Amino acid sequence: MYRDKTCGELRISDAGQKVTLAGWVQKTRKMGGMTFVDIRDRYGITQAVFNNEIDRDLTDKANTLGREYVVRISGTVAERSSKNPNIPTGDIEVIADSLEVLNTSEIPPFTIEDNTDGGDDLRMKFRYLDLRRPCVRKNLELRHKMAFEIRRYLDSEGFLEIETPILVKSTPEGARDFVVPSRMNPGEFYALPQSPQIFKQLLMVSGYDRYFQIAKCFRDEDLRADRQPEFTQIDCEMSFVEQEDVISTFEGLVKHIFKYVKHIDFTEPFPRITWADAMRLYGSDKPDIRFGMQFVELNDVAKGFGFGVIDDAELAVGILAEGCASWSRKQIDELTEFVKRPQVGAKGLIWVKFEPDGSIKSSVGKFYTPEQLQKWGEKAGAKPGDLLLVMTGDAMKVRKQLCELRLEMGNRLGLRDKNTFAPLWVIDFPLFEWDDETQRFYAMHHPFTSPNPDDIPLLDTDPGKVRATAYDIVVNGTELGGGSIRIHNSELQDKMFKLLGFTPERAHEQFGFLMNAFKYGAPPHGGLALGFDRFVSILAGLDTIRDVIAFPKNNSGRDTMNESPSPIAQEQLDELYLDLRPHSIKDV
Amino acid sequence: MYRDKTCGELRISDAGQKVTLAGWVQKTRKMGGMTFVDIRDRYGITQAVFNNEIDRDLTDKANTLGREYVVRISGTVAERSSKNPNIPTGDIEVIADSLEVLNTSEIPPFTIEDNTDGGDDLRMKFRYLDLRRPCVRKNLELRHKMAFEIRRYLDSEGFLEIETPILVKSTPEGARDFVVPSRMNPGEFYALPQSPQIFKQLLMVSGYDRYFQIAKCFRDEDLRADRQPEFTQIDCEMSFVEQEDVISTFEGLVKHIFKYVKHIDFTEPFPRITWADAMRLYGSDKPDIRFGMQFVELNDVAKGFGFGVIDDAELAVGILAEGCASWSRKQIDELTEFVKRPQVGAKGLIWVKFEPDGSIKSSVGKFYTPEQLQKWGEKAGAKPGDLLLVMTGDAMKVRKQLCELRLEMGNRLGLRDKNTFAPLWVIDFPLFEWDDETQRFYAMHHPFTSPNPDDIPLLDTDPGKVRATAYDIVVNGTELGGGSIRIHNSELQDKMFKLLGFTPERAHEQFGFLMNAFKYGAPPHGGLALGFDRFVSILAGLDTIRDVIAFPKNNSGRDTMNESPSPIAQEQLDELYLDLRPHSIKDV
Repeated sequence: MYRDKTCGELRISDAGQKVTLAGWVQKTRKMGGMTFVDIRDRYGITQAVFNNEIDRDLTDKANTLGREYVVRISGTVAERSSKNPNIPTGDIEVIADSLEVLNTSEIPPFTIEDNTDGGDDLRMKFRYLDLRRPCVRKNLELRHKMAFEIRRYLDSEGFLEIETPILVKSTPEGARDFVVPSRMNPGEFYALPQSPQIFKQLLMVSGYDRYFQIAKCFRDEDLRADRQPEFTQIDCEMSFVEQEDVISTFEGLVKHIFKYVKHIDFTEPFPRITWADAMRLYGSDKPDIRFGMQFVELNDVAKGFGFGVIDDAELAVGILAEGCASWSRKQIDELTEFVKRPQVGAKGLIWVKFEPDGSIKSSVGKFYTPEQLQKWGEKAGAKPGDLLLVMTGDAMKVRKQLCELRLEMGNRLGLRDKNTFAPLWVIDFPLFEWDDETQRFYAMHHPFTSPNPDDIPLLDTDPGKVRATAYDIVVNGTELGGGSIRIHNSELQDKMFKLLGFTPERAHEQFGFLMNAFKYGAPPHGGLALGFDRFVSILAGLDTIRDVIAFPKNNSGRDTMNESPSPIAQEQLDELYLDLRPHSIKDV
Repeated sequence: MYRDKTCGELRISDAGQKVTLAGWVQKTRKMGGMTFVDIRDRYGITQAVFNNEIDRDLTDKANTLGREYVVRISGTVAERSSKNPNIPTGDIEVIADSLEVLNTSEIPPFTIEDNTDGGDDLRMKFRYLDLRRPCVRKNLELRHKMAFEIRRYLDSEGFLEIETPILVKSTPEGARDFVVPSRMNPGEFYALPQSPQIFKQLLMVSGYDRYFQIAKCFRDEDLRADRQPEFTQIDCEMSFVEQEDVISTFEGLVKHIFKYVKHIDFTEPFPRITWADAMRLYGSDKPDIRFGMQFVELNDVAKGFGFGVIDDAELAVGILAEGCASWSRKQIDELTEFVKRPQVGAKGLIWVKFEPDGSIKSSVGKFYTPEQLQKWGEKAGAKPGDLLLVMTGDAMKVRKQLCELRLEMGNRLGLRDKNTFAPLWVIDFPLFEWDDETQRFYAMHHPFTSPNPDDIPLLDTDPGKVRATAYDIVVNGTELGGGSIRIHNSELQDKMFKLLGFTPERAHEQFGFLMNAFKYGAPPHGGLALGFDRFVSILAGLDTIRDVIAFPKNNSGRDTMNESPSPIAQEQLDELYLDLRPHSIKDV
């Protein structure tokens, strides 16, 4: 071992001890005849001191050290005269008596500090240096700890972690598969799994009862801001369970993680909301409930007064911003601009100020009397000093627009603190989504999702009304994961495939081996999957998943560090019996 | 929840309790007016009893149950009149008062028992049923427990589990890569990683100090008996370490697993043997030391007596089989046949029997006097009653042949008990292997392996003699894993690439980003990787890794359960700008 102590562990109680440290030179400072060298490793930073008057050669050598040189330093721990309260080793320094340069370093293209001067592209190209920054390292340490605690909890609950294959069968439905040509079976391809869904259901048929896996999943999608072609999922499945069992097991998991990783103890059950209520009250199936500001529907108090914008709209709906009656015209104009952005797409914004003196001001004051507007305020529970923001339009559309405004108001009012966590379950999702374009139903989750038993008669009469036995867990407005009870009855499954427009042949081609398996005694089962990258990023207080992944890819699916993907050798193509088709950049 | 107890937990102390169980019908037996149903789940088997005289309808219903039906049974726990000592629940039965068929089952193509009537092909096609067999389930339970304990140990030693990518850069050296065409970058491909080697070295450059990962690895090789295209590796790397540190850390890991999983406590350090000694004493770099029977070199006592087979050979070398002088001619003929098999390839076998009465019999009695053969016996430490088996030839070749014979003798003498475990380290591997055909050196491990510091001068003068700082851990004649200290000095790395015949351009093309990373302060580092599938199979006492993998592939890389690989849709090929080249079966 090149060291006997790390750079993070020495304290005042170690004073007088002979130690050897190894690490990277964070920085050097010359002060008179003294040279101070900060050595960094994963565990911390320790200051070493070289004294010209004690050992001139050694101090000269220390003066040649550059940033990020790898060194081994021996010496004696001593109390510092000027202590640094910002670091745990700040009370001591090491009076060096030997110095070995284990490796030199070129000058890094950006500084190895939390507030680095490197831009995103440079950081990704030199990811191995970016990973040295303590703020990035902390994310990966958090990720490790979370994975460990997830396994500890699930093991204690009787779950078995079972690895399912990465080379699987391509099932061209849902997202696009990455495919892998088979050399031994020319003309044939494996796919990389979009999720272990079918394998985990097979494991339930196999009687494994409680399965989990922290599993790599792959989707060849055009990458939006926060997607990665490969991502990690906490994938789980249980047998002989109903929705309540799955929810309580995984609520336990999420509470365990918060408790052991973030030291936050959720003692109450997580709130639950139906999908219909979530849409009605927050305009979203993943509401951020760190703050209230629930939607207030105003049709019954606002319609019929001759104001076309409201009279002609399906829905007039608002949110109450407490204490914001004092907002300036400029501030409210900004909100109007915000909702008019193409990303939100509203036509405008109605506002009503309930002034502290009891008077009412409004953008629609010409159309409504103060008494009429007072009714709006009563509906919204407005107090003097509050501001009511109202939007109109088609019900589902205006709700989504108002959801954006609500979140924006939450941001502006500082109600979305990254250190506050508000988990909840969204339940009773619709089983189907109707697609106007193709004029058919699609499975909102996947074709194995069980309908709510109470709604089975509706399958024949009004499929759009059928609720699924499906549930999502949402934290701070982000979907952490979700799942469902699966269909284990093959007649019901056949009916589902039919409703989803699968011919028996296509159903068999895609899911034949699962359907075959179901003939041999499938137990009732259900499960859920949590996005692990997302889970880590929420706990890390980050907006993107990229910084909780050691070696992420950019929006073109490229790793700019190793320049992959890349062309392969002709012999590799020959062995695979593949030809590249000519293409122009335009084609892509 | 469909049950309140599992099928494995009820004991005599539960008698009188009302319970509900759910599981699969293992078998039913009708005896008079009674029907006995064995219900199976992951946790065990429980007997339920239906009595015609108490509830005729219910008993009739129980009589309709088929094998592998999924049922829910409620009833009262009662002491059995005839107990079954072979199962933990054998003292009780459940007097059923309700029965619900949760799912029916077709008759499975083989019986769900440890000794099944299903052949390998059938078992693989219906893997989801094969997985129900308790002996297969036990392997996956063992695998889960081992993975959990590996993580627990490494976490406690300060290792961080860090996920490295599955979509990586293709480096056409070593085994063949699986490749993945990139739709977003047409004409370019990712590769699936053969190991996380380069990423883990980058993580050391990044200062992560102690990394591990239980990682999926991929090799597109022609599959020999016990290879899988995707396999799992316990991959580790440490910084600021020397060989001794890596060995002691991972010896600790292996001991931990044996202790907490198999309840075997290794209190002594594992033996260590140099590669040269392993070859000399066992003819193998992965010796099975569950038994002795070390090689005895006989040149000095056997040469020069006019017996050409020995005089003309580079090496005469034998093993002593204690107490085997009584073996019959037929038994010894079988051994001779064994070594003459093409897999071993020897020309013949010399034997010397040291009879209990002090006399000596030998297949070479015509060429040697008893006194001369007595010298052989002295060299081998033979006692009266022992049998000496001798082979001759080129030194390295005859050693490998004798190794096969030694293992065969171990089998015949029952010295290779699957419940005995004999781990050891093999150290001081040669750095290079000379290949006669291409007339060049190859890296025995990989090009980043550090030479033994003492041997660095030999790099220029006699590369074949240079020892690597590389080590393997071997258990029961199987390589469990291995590793090395890596080169962290770029001049030494350049010299290695040169010796290995890499042009600077090719070295840069393949390992450029690693070499670039090394310019920014690479710490001394080293590590190791253990074959996880292999580790599980050793502890499970299995000869193949296939049965410790939930969904393995066959020797053609096919999963016969889901019929993958398979053709993909033309649209998928179009999106990838790929054409299939015509081929005949013959081509493959």
